[in-house]
Amino acid sequence: MNVSQRARDIQASPIRKLKPHADRAKARGVKIFHLNIGDPDIPAPRPVLDTFRNWSQPVLSYGPAQGFLELREAVARYFGNYGIPLCADDILITLGGSEAIHFTFSVVADVGDEIIIPEPYYTNYNGYASFAGVRIVPLPLSVEDGFRLPPAEALEARITSRTRAILLCSPNNPTGTVYTPEEIEGVVGLVKKHGLFLIGDEVYKEFVYDGLRHKSILEYEDIRDRAVVVDSISKRYSCCGARIGMIVTRNKDLYAAALKFAQARLCPPSVEQMAALAAYSMPMDYFRGIREEYDKRREILYQGLKEIPGIVIHKPQGAFYVIVRLPVKDIEHFAVWMLEEFSLDGRTVMIAPAPGFYSTPCLGTDEARLAYVVNEHDLREAVRVFRAGLTKYQGLFP
Amino acid sequence: MNVSQRARDIQASPIRKLKPHADRAKARGVKIFHLNIGDPDIPAPRPVLDTFRNWSQPVLSYGPAQGFLELREAVARYFGNYGIPLCADDILITLGGSEAIHFTFSVVADVGDEIIIPEPYYTNYNGYASFAGVRIVPLPLSVEDGFRLPPAEALEARITSRTRAILLCSPNNPTGTVYTPEEIEGVVGLVKKHGLFLIGDEVYKEFVYDGLRHKSILEYEDIRDRAVVVDSISKRYSCCGARIGMIVTRNKDLYAAALKFAQARLCPPSVEQMAALAAYSMPMDYFRGIREEYDKRREILYQGLKEIPGIVIHKPQGAFYVIVRLPVKDIEHFAVWMLEEFSLDGRTVMIAPAPGFYSTPCLGTDEARLAYVVNEHDLREAVRVFRAGLTKYQGLFP
Repeated sequence: MNVSQRARDIQASPIRKLKPHADRAKARGVKIFHLNIGDPDIPAPRPVLDTFRNWSQPVLSYGPAQGFLELREAVARYFGNYGIPLCADDILITLGGSEAIHFTFSVVADVGDEIIIPEPYYTNYNGYASFAGVRIVPLPLSVEDGFRLPPAEALEARITSRTRAILLCSPNNPTGTVYTPEEIEGVVGLVKKHGLFLIGDEVYKEFVYDGLRHKSILEYEDIRDRAVVVDSISKRYSCCGARIGMIVTRNKDLYAAALKFAQARLCPPSVEQMAALAAYSMPMDYFRGIREEYDKRREILYQGLKEIPGIVIHKPQGAFYVIVRLPVKDIEHFAVWMLEEFSLDGRTVMIAPAPGFYSTPCLGTDEARLAYVVNEHDLREAVRVFRAGLTKYQGLFP
Repeated sequence: MNVSQRARDIQASPIRKLKPHADRAKARGVKIFHLNIGDPDIPAPRPVLDTFRNWSQPVLSYGPAQGFLELREAVARYFGNYGIPLCADDILITLGGSEAIHFTFSVVADVGDEIIIPEPYYTNYNGYASFAGVRIVPLPLSVEDGFRLPPAEALEARITSRTRAILLCSPNNPTGTVYTPEEIEGVVGLVKKHGLFLIGDEVYKEFVYDGLRHKSILEYEDIRDRAVVVDSISKRYSCCGARIGMIVTRNKDLYAAALKFAQARLCPPSVEQMAALAAYSMPMDYFRGIREEYDKRREILYQGLKEIPGIVIHKPQGAFYVIVRLPVKDIEHFAVWMLEEFSLDGRTVMIAPAPGFYSTPCLGTDEARLAYVVNEHDLREAVRVFRAGLTKYQGLFP
């Protein structure tokens, strides 16, 4: 009577495995600056919170498996504001972006099939690939050139008879890179040539800086039937705990297949869907203030870090993360040391070691992901504490 | 570029496939009595609704993957009230009972392994078995003897080298049967003898009538490490739309494995968890009034149906469902006819054809599941309309 082999095989969350060390630091009274996780501190829009406060229905009933029509219509209007005409039936509401990824992997690929993803990539793709029995084929990118996509031939060399899809996350978690139209077009060409699906993770699309514009894979008319976007309100509206995401696709077969999976789990949470409806009813200029706030923080983190000797950093263009290379041999050891051994004025910094974002063994062992979702003042302090910790660590472990 | 084979194979929800027919009936102005679905009409407890109304946190943050500690502690106290001592770490909060089933199937069984389930059974087990690549081995029961479990030998004959677990749902959806301690002990003996897990679906445990008492599989000390309960607040507190469920087990390996799956999907919804905390903080006598209400409806439905000539019915002892055999050749045809062709005073009845609850082909083709989750007055009317419809149908399709 043992648990299943797959349960033994599945990777424990690499982001969460530092938690016991953080708990011990807190128990010692050390304040931790959390640059390790992308949990927004910016309040959710007022109408979202008002949805809860004004809730009057006495029964929390099951809703439709694909989500409430009003919400799907509001999401369609939101895409319309980006020049992407959609109807409500192109949108399937899911239990967070997580479920959108799970369903999409399961619907585009069978057990043993392959999905190509540039790495480093969002670690939870691994969990859902395990669930679905799908193999992720990583395409390694590099901090030296800002994690740009390689020429199409390098990507094409990874396509096999088992390849079913390519996944692009832009703006990227964990790198902060925003792919250019040229980069995306190269991938679109491959998708057409080899008869693949293109999965777009576009949850950070409002968080793009330097006057850049996010280009959605849904804008490419010649892959209308091949494009599927996994999306979420978590970051866009500071609603991580609401667990509302969605699959967006104009491929009717793909939608119908995902709907069958959705029916098995009945429906998304009803009150939270109405909160999401309030969020999607916000005017589009709501994002301007949020973007400006994250942009300021980006500058603070980038300017602070790039002055640290021995660090390799590219300026992130989107989302609220950056991957940096540090002058250390073992990033996991450094991350634990920062929590267990170091503090400055009773404070330390928690980072996310990059190996969890790579599936190619031995990559990212001197890299970390830092998130800028703490306020300006704390972020300045965090950079100061981080620099002091790194300097001390280098002295101890040269 | 096709969807995956598994997406083509997965069964569309048999409960939901009548929906287009119901929509057409509504479009014609016909009122439908929904005896087809177990969506409670009884209001959720006041403190649950107050949780939403009093929500004051400005950010909906990620919570722990296993759910909030306060909620898990409240659930542990609730089990303590039933004489089942648990600690918070025996409880893993999930996205509805659906996710609890999905994780449990995935953690006890590998692809190709088997789980034995008495049939008819809750249809959504099929969806999650498909997700997990697990084979459900049905053990057919019969309306004639009230869907009692057969002697242990009949169950044992279905155990193979691939069997990993037996699942018991009591009080049962869809039959309304409550298993006796003797029936459960027989299964407990097999589980021990063959080294299996025992999965208990006990979401209806408060809804037991005739002075009977629900016996949990967690009460059997000698299978402490083999017992895992999948549970949900949906029916217990009329919160189907909240999507809060849980896995309850004292097996630490099984818990740790399920937690890895849970980490991949980040966390359950945060506001809804606090609503669940309010629910689990209700005094235990809250259930008395709910039970009395369902009991009254049970009598109305049972007494009304058993007088219909040609019907075979057993008196349900729990939950709020009953499976009846009807004097028709093709229950799907009858169910559609009731929606498309029949009405009495502008009203008709929607039922759930039983074949969706069987996986053995050709079983249940003259059976239906009826749920008594409409108020007394409507239920009396529904029985009258149903009887008239059945009589007319028999005249047309003898």
